[in-house]
Amino acid sequence: MKALAEIQIIPIGVGISVRAQVTRARAVIAEANLIVEEHAYGTNVEGELTEILATVARIHEVLHAEGTPRLSTALKLGTRIDKDATLSSKRTR
Amino acid sequence: MKALAEIQIIPIGVGISVRAQVTRARAVIAEANLIVEEHAYGTNVEGELTEILATVARIHEVLHAEGTPRLSTALKLGTRIDKDATLSSKRTR
Amino acid sequence: MKALAEIQIIPIGVGISVRAQVTRARAVIAEANLIVEEHAYGTNVEGELTEILATVARIHEVLHAEGTPRLSTALKLGTRIDKDATLSSKRTR
Amino acid sequence: MKALAEIQIIPIGVGISVRAQVTRARAVIAEANLIVEEHAYGTNVEGELTEILATVARIHEVLHAEGTPRLSTALKLGTRIDKDATLSSKRTR
Repeated sequence: MKALAEIQIIPIGVGISVRAQVTRARAVIAEANLIVEEHAYGTNVEGELTEILATVARIHEVLHAEGTPRLSTALKLGTRIDKDATLSSKRTR
Repeated sequence: MKALAEIQIIPIGVGISVRAQVTRARAVIAEANLIVEEHAYGTNVEGELTEILATVARIHEVLHAEGTPRLSTALKLGTRIDKDATLSSKRTR
Repeated sequence: MKALAEIQIIPIGVGISVRAQVTRARAVIAEANLIVEEHAYGTNVEGELTEILATVARIHEVLHAEGTPRLSTALKLGTRIDKDATLSSKRTR
Repeated sequence: MKALAEIQIIPIGVGISVRAQVTRARAVIAEANLIVEEHAYGTNVEGELTEILATVARIHEVLHAEGTPRLSTALKLGTRIDKDATLSSKRTR
């Protein structure tokens, strides 16, 4: 099933700046087979639902393996059966 | 990896009342191997990360198969490596 | 306007445990003129939209004044005009 | 207090397509005194916390007044006291 998603990660226990961990998570997302659009509040992706979910799991595995002690992810997930969902079709201009 | 999560689904295109679809999603969650706590704004779960993500995918599959044309899910996911995360430890009283 | 909401705060830069700040935020919510239901992933509230939004602002003010350097809040907000929204009506059982 | 936020609205009970309501909400945001960055999953804004919250309230008022029967908003809100939060500083590249 095709899906759209927004992935936002919040590393906890790494200090006030979370830039290094966010950058690492975005690198993990970039390795996946997904169309990617980064913005200030997360990363929007388009692709197979299973690939999106596997990518989220991989972010948690990689960041914990590299030292992030606690991780809070907010995932928004959208699917529809009337037509293909695409990131570009969600833009209003 | 153990995880905590909150699953909130918003069916779109089924009318103003979304009760039937929310009830169905909760039934799908209840079938999973997860500790479950329902509340007015979603369902909190505790279990294996892979089981949680598979459950979310299954909710989308089941609801679409049963006629929901569009589905927006908000998933919050928490993992930590310093100790086991449990729903009961997240309560402040 | 009546509204329902879920308030989740994530303090950043206070270490791995965020219990003290979450407890403080819940105390701020308890002082507001809102019906409150706490759960492991946030606090659900019912009341006037303006009161809910003012409470969220107050949480940020109080926590920052008491030393939390960075704060990420996730607020879900629901309103409807066909009937009164209540926390109890959102339960599926 | 300066804040960053992401505003996502989900109109319920208007059918499968929610484009008209999302476009209207973005017009309400554009009228506010906020720096705005639209993306496929919402609108990121930068400005005064009180202005952001007032804008969210106004979206609910306007959309309901114009016929949207039910509205679910997801708001992410970020504040910090160690330095000014800006949308541009949150980008990782």
